[in-house]
Amino acid sequence: MRFQSRYLLERLENLSKSGIYPYHMPGHKRKMNGYPLERLYQIDITEIEDFDNLHDPKDILLVLQERIQSLYHSEKSYCLVNGSSCGVLSAVSACSVRGGSIMLARNSHKSAYHAVFQEELNAVYLYPEYDETCGLYGPVSPQAVEEAFGKHPECRTVLITSPTYEGVVSDIRSIADIVHRHDGILIVDEAHGAHFIFTGQEEKSAVGQGADIVIHSIHKTLPAPTQTALLHICSRRADRERIERYLRIYQSSSPSYVLLAGIEQCFAILEQEADDRSRFFRQNISRLKRKVESCRHLRVVPGTETGKLVITVSHGSWTGRKLYEVLLEQYGLQMEMAGAHYVVAIMTLMDTQEGYDRLAEALTAIDGSMEEEDSVIHVRPYCAYGYPETAMTIYDALSQPREKIPLENCGGRTAAEYVGLYPPGIPIMVPGERYTKESIETLTQYERQGLPLQGMDEKRQVYVLSSE
Amino acid sequence: MRFQSRYLLERLENLSKSGIYPYHMPGHKRKMNGYPLERLYQIDITEIEDFDNLHDPKDILLVLQERIQSLYHSEKSYCLVNGSSCGVLSAVSACSVRGGSIMLARNSHKSAYHAVFQEELNAVYLYPEYDETCGLYGPVSPQAVEEAFGKHPECRTVLITSPTYEGVVSDIRSIADIVHRHDGILIVDEAHGAHFIFTGQEEKSAVGQGADIVIHSIHKTLPAPTQTALLHICSRRADRERIERYLRIYQSSSPSYVLLAGIEQCFAILEQEADDRSRFFRQNISRLKRKVESCRHLRVVPGTETGKLVITVSHGSWTGRKLYEVLLEQYGLQMEMAGAHYVVAIMTLMDTQEGYDRLAEALTAIDGSMEEEDSVIHVRPYCAYGYPETAMTIYDALSQPREKIPLENCGGRTAAEYVGLYPPGIPIMVPGERYTKESIETLTQYERQGLPLQGMDEKRQVYVLSSE
Repeated sequence: MRFQSRYLLERLENLSKSGIYPYHMPGHKRKMNGYPLERLYQIDITEIEDFDNLHDPKDILLVLQERIQSLYHSEKSYCLVNGSSCGVLSAVSACSVRGGSIMLARNSHKSAYHAVFQEELNAVYLYPEYDETCGLYGPVSPQAVEEAFGKHPECRTVLITSPTYEGVVSDIRSIADIVHRHDGILIVDEAHGAHFIFTGQEEKSAVGQGADIVIHSIHKTLPAPTQTALLHICSRRADRERIERYLRIYQSSSPSYVLLAGIEQCFAILEQEADDRSRFFRQNISRLKRKVESCRHLRVVPGTETGKLVITVSHGSWTGRKLYEVLLEQYGLQMEMAGAHYVVAIMTLMDTQEGYDRLAEALTAIDGSMEEEDSVIHVRPYCAYGYPETAMTIYDALSQPREKIPLENCGGRTAAEYVGLYPPGIPIMVPGERYTKESIETLTQYERQGLPLQGMDEKRQVYVLSSE
Repeated sequence: MRFQSRYLLERLENLSKSGIYPYHMPGHKRKMNGYPLERLYQIDITEIEDFDNLHDPKDILLVLQERIQSLYHSEKSYCLVNGSSCGVLSAVSACSVRGGSIMLARNSHKSAYHAVFQEELNAVYLYPEYDETCGLYGPVSPQAVEEAFGKHPECRTVLITSPTYEGVVSDIRSIADIVHRHDGILIVDEAHGAHFIFTGQEEKSAVGQGADIVIHSIHKTLPAPTQTALLHICSRRADRERIERYLRIYQSSSPSYVLLAGIEQCFAILEQEADDRSRFFRQNISRLKRKVESCRHLRVVPGTETGKLVITVSHGSWTGRKLYEVLLEQYGLQMEMAGAHYVVAIMTLMDTQEGYDRLAEALTAIDGSMEEEDSVIHVRPYCAYGYPETAMTIYDALSQPREKIPLENCGGRTAAEYVGLYPPGIPIMVPGERYTKESIETLTQYERQGLPLQGMDEKRQVYVLSSE
């Protein structure tokens, strides 16, 4: 062992300065000085002598994973370089029997549907509550889980997204109790909640609330590079070997050490600075919310976790998209997404005073510029149009001949492709679901509002099964 | 559109300087100044306004992909951020009927076996020729493909690895003709050959030789960051929509724009500098090979593509691992891998004069220090022990109860896990294959030589099916 450091980044820096000449991948040979991003290439390697193997860690990557385990109090944590997507796919696959059933929240991320497809699962949906006025998915209630087990006692695997994209947290403790009473296993897609333990929201963290497997997208809310994520095993119910098998499938056999060093740096920063940054974060979010309280037309939706600000607009001529565009074009503030009635801002431990101040000032000014009007908008939120009937599994729907037809002619036809907004990446139509008058209307409205709709082409056509 | 540049990196730099404040992912908020790698974070975003969507590209990522298409003369090229692994998985999945058959070279990368598992395929193996003296896999012969179709006319999908890990190229033109005559589709895992068109080896490039789908790992031999790759569609036989479906499954829904900018930069460098660099590369490789020709015990294996130097040692007390270690410990030269009898060095367009000189000097000096001996080593190469019999599919083998037993007791038992060296990541035992006396002997020898064996624990135990 020529590199003794216990820290990956330091070891990579030492390699870079060592004078050792690389006759191996990557092909840039760390000889990119003078080109943009030269620092990145200086530490960009994949598995070589002394640098361990992500798919079978025994040395420095094991040390990193153990450090993360002790921060989250998990039984076993894995560093991921292909996003939460590969974590969700691996967890669901590992917990499934091909052709079996899974109980999952209908507002799951697309990767969950991909897993349902890959494992040919029959999906039993949990429908979250929703708020008709602002159009947000609420939590999945423990009662809904209990009822679903009553109707589908064959289910063993349950997948919940908590917090939701908009920051709504479900009662994981109660849901876990129900799932375990039915001899099941609970996977929590906590992609948006990796920061809970660092921001005074420990009680929301699924790892400590009875979940068996938890997936964290650390690039979403922590200071980590895009594509980095974690999978935590939190109980003996999870089959480690099966999970590792699927992580090897869903991740490159040449993981980027730049991304891995970024994961390490993320937790190095948090270990040192999380307390101070958390205090600053909570104070500023409270102050920002108080300022928006004085607005006449804008409102911060209550009940989300601290890092998510969902700002609704209840003014006749304003949509979420319009608010989003004004914030971007006139104030230089880039929101995470626009919904029909609202925008979402993600705030993290890395936000600066400037970030809080500019948002508060912009919202106050925009609100002040809105004239009084009687009408409030009545675009129905995407989760409020009633859930479409499932005619067949995703796997079956994607295995049959299909055709493209105009959206307006789809009533009663079976979807043969996903259609949805990205962000957030939650399908509005899932292959195998039947189009209804309401779903066609919702998609039409989204398109008119200029929201980023995927699965419909420029001629407003969508795929349906042709065998009908 | 606020960012007009046609170049992704420039657009990312402009965003970074724009003063636009991010209320979105990633959570580091591009506020990492003062931390290591700060430049990386300044341009690290995922899909936001004006920055397109890798899973549905319409703007700047489409421009990048079209630029790559015209360099390789493909019909359609895709940028990948989860390595060649996700390209191989997507290509095989898209071309398969679940539960069907595939014809593939036995020296395929692990990701090909993962695809066989995922799609529950029956694998019909093509056994490449091999060189008994140096222990290298040779090409897959067109005749072997023709014969396999004779025995297995049900096969439609054929997967060949060319070049091999060690740089051996198969006759893709002839193989493609045979495959197409049998109404099949040819996928070439050209992970190690992305550089052919830039190094005067155009005639080896599978894209122009009749392959239907080609996968390139650009981080292996081109100046691109680890985890970046390409998938090229080269004919109408490939179903674009199915390939795109699987690329969406096997890649994160939040791709790293640092990796994407790295792909762009790679081809920007090549467009500008490939001619000069290629001349330098070819001259220096020739000169290096000539120097090694004067050695008594070391030899460069002929017949590999220009970028791969396979250096064999034919001296009684020297193994590949010993040569590898001496090069690293005494000369500071890190090889790509060590085999039983040889080491592999990867040379690329980014290598410097220093790199060529140091390797030539070290090899000459090591050779000079070897004393004359009569004996030559007789470790049998991993591809030379005869191919184990396949008892069942990978899917079936991995779905059954298994147990761990000592390697020496495995004779006649069915493997229930992959066992192989990493690198190169080609399984020696595939789940469903029966252990033979020869395979046990080979694994034992590899372990004794200290080669990086995966799939065997520290007690020298491996998984076999317990139902026997």
